[in-house]
Amino acid sequence: MSGRLESWLASANRAETSFPLNNLPCGVFSRGGDAPRCCTAIGGQVLDLAWLQRAGLLDGLPPVFDQPSWNGFMAAGTAAWSALRQRLTHLLSAGAAEEAQLRPTLVPLTEVQLHLPFTVAEYTDFFSSEDHARNAGMALRGADTLVENWVHIPVGYNGRASTVVVSGTPVRRPLGQILPAGATMPVFAASARMDFELELGAVVGLPNRPGEPVTLAEAEAMIFGYVLLNDWSARDIQGWENRPLGPFQSKGFATSIGAWIVTREALAAARCAAPARHLPLLPYLDDAGRPAHFDIDLTARLSTSVGTEAVITRTNYRRMYFSLVQQLCHHAANGCAMRTGDLIGSGTVSGPAPENRGCLLELTWNGRDPLHLPDGTTRTYLEDGDSLTLSGHAECDGYRIGFGECAGTITPALAKGG
Amino acid sequence: MSGRLESWLASANRAETSFPLNNLPCGVFSRGGDAPRCCTAIGGQVLDLAWLQRAGLLDGLPPVFDQPSWNGFMAAGTAAWSALRQRLTHLLSAGAAEEAQLRPTLVPLTEVQLHLPFTVAEYTDFFSSEDHARNAGMALRGADTLVENWVHIPVGYNGRASTVVVSGTPVRRPLGQILPAGATMPVFAASARMDFELELGAVVGLPNRPGEPVTLAEAEAMIFGYVLLNDWSARDIQGWENRPLGPFQSKGFATSIGAWIVTREALAAARCAAPARHLPLLPYLDDAGRPAHFDIDLTARLSTSVGTEAVITRTNYRRMYFSLVQQLCHHAANGCAMRTGDLIGSGTVSGPAPENRGCLLELTWNGRDPLHLPDGTTRTYLEDGDSLTLSGHAECDGYRIGFGECAGTITPALAKGG
Repeated sequence: MSGRLESWLASANRAETSFPLNNLPCGVFSRGGDAPRCCTAIGGQVLDLAWLQRAGLLDGLPPVFDQPSWNGFMAAGTAAWSALRQRLTHLLSAGAAEEAQLRPTLVPLTEVQLHLPFTVAEYTDFFSSEDHARNAGMALRGADTLVENWVHIPVGYNGRASTVVVSGTPVRRPLGQILPAGATMPVFAASARMDFELELGAVVGLPNRPGEPVTLAEAEAMIFGYVLLNDWSARDIQGWENRPLGPFQSKGFATSIGAWIVTREALAAARCAAPARHLPLLPYLDDAGRPAHFDIDLTARLSTSVGTEAVITRTNYRRMYFSLVQQLCHHAANGCAMRTGDLIGSGTVSGPAPENRGCLLELTWNGRDPLHLPDGTTRTYLEDGDSLTLSGHAECDGYRIGFGECAGTITPALAKGG
Repeated sequence: MSGRLESWLASANRAETSFPLNNLPCGVFSRGGDAPRCCTAIGGQVLDLAWLQRAGLLDGLPPVFDQPSWNGFMAAGTAAWSALRQRLTHLLSAGAAEEAQLRPTLVPLTEVQLHLPFTVAEYTDFFSSEDHARNAGMALRGADTLVENWVHIPVGYNGRASTVVVSGTPVRRPLGQILPAGATMPVFAASARMDFELELGAVVGLPNRPGEPVTLAEAEAMIFGYVLLNDWSARDIQGWENRPLGPFQSKGFATSIGAWIVTREALAAARCAAPARHLPLLPYLDDAGRPAHFDIDLTARLSTSVGTEAVITRTNYRRMYFSLVQQLCHHAANGCAMRTGDLIGSGTVSGPAPENRGCLLELTWNGRDPLHLPDGTTRTYLEDGDSLTLSGHAECDGYRIGFGECAGTITPALAKGG
């Protein structure tokens, strides 16, 4: 017996849809240039929550759905989050009395423009896939350079929120300082090693008390939902700048996220065990009682400007050494104020097999082992005109919880610069 | 002949005041719990700009001074910035017809509460004092570990804007992962190596075009002003977490800034030459035509809970290898979107002599050479109850441009944690 919830909308009941009634992701849409506002996706359609609220069908919920971001609703707290889910589930269920009222307001997903679903307060990225961490060291330095802290700390760094863009936004190849092979003096030039990083992101919905750590359970309760995330990386800029303070300009030009926030409640059915750890975790990170890992299949698809297309990565979030809940807990452990709208990246999600590698640095072993595309061409790093599309979904009991896509096309670097 | 501008307010004409008519710094104040609003300082007094605007004395300027931050005014642009300076200079000059109207509205600095002067969009910290970079390597590792990129790149990292606080805010000692000496397993504990970092910060007033680099001249024009900045650092947390992605939780618990933004126009008189560089700079960073260095004397004063007080650092901003303008230019070089309210830290400002060292890591050579305080006690790192106060000013032609102070007192760590 399936756990799929039956909707009056046929496209929401198909086995392969990303957006069954069990999902109800959070997005921001506009149509024909009108004002962006909050929506959800159901089957192949978008449901306008601002309209729903004006029509009196969301009574008791805060009047925030006409805003162009979910921040206002996230700040309203967990009771509101659950109430919205219950209300939408009721309205869209098979047999709902409101079907006749709602059906004419649905808009096909193909006819809307999707926007950044929330205003990003700050952005932090982590580094918690063991396969990625070991592969990256091997590919770059020919040695397993995993630092001894890695099994204890969810290693992370602060990123740049101003450069987070929604799926579909073109990504310009950045300029930066690069040390050419064999040279002793750097040049200022366009990156020639443009990479993607397949990640999952957590959207922080609620703040901690500034100055105070949170438990794992409290950290989990702060998370509103999850998005696909591509932490675009310029490997040549990174290689030159990385020591001693870590990645900076090599990452801080663009990070793409998917247009749909899949809520924590929707993902509950995809929960799974954490991987075995090499050493005991410190108590504040020990998730033995309740790991917050998810069984989410993730893929990356490369499309070239001449139309060649190939899925180049197939991986799964479940093997991450630290979950996004552990990462958030660590982030707040020093009392750091976390705020509504903070975005936390999982780090590249790789896996044990070559096809599980979540970035080109690993997939091509830093360019030494090019990818062979179906049209006979090869790729080491991304070329101008290449599009990279992440997608992901959890296979649940008779239905899928899908994230949609997170896509970006590389555009040529500016000529400007020294 | 002095360049000091004469005010009708006697305290603004004294040689030692931080706030002569030439300065006119930007702050946010309240009094007796009323609503925080924009102000300037003149001599020993605060001038309420919201009142001034309501009284019709700031005609032609945007109606933003009743806001609790300068962001609205910063976004209004350079013409507004100059117009305000001209208008205030006129109103406060000796002989101004408005003296009788203004004088009763002045409030002594000792009677107001000062607030964070702007809303911090994002915070980035750099590492551009050669003395600091070399000393830190020597003190930590016994070797000059300056990385070869350092003379080419203004090395920086993204910090955490949510933890920026105004001078006077207590700073709680953070918890974090620490590797005890000789141990192989870390503990989660209160930092025992709490340090300060004496820095200057630049406040970004205007954005670049997202995705586009800026020239040095454009970067300079984006800067609204400068503040004192203390990048509190937990050295034991930093030592364990720092590899491979740089400082994160060791810095992301508190950064204090002074309550006064000294405008770029006010500092023009303190401009000075850049230090000689070891190697030619890449063209986009070459400031030969117009270095944006300043001759600013900076001090750090330590006060203990039993009332002992000592100036422990006397240094100057002029020796920084890269200016804040070069740092901002580098930050935008990859197209990173810079926004109104971004805060950029210079990095610790040290100098060649032992008394010029801008943090305790250098001053005590990582604790091996304790500071001797006047009461016979010693300090390696900061203890609970210690206060650290930065101050700074530029000596100009017959007057000072002062920054006020940037102070914080260490409070005990929370008992909570794993």
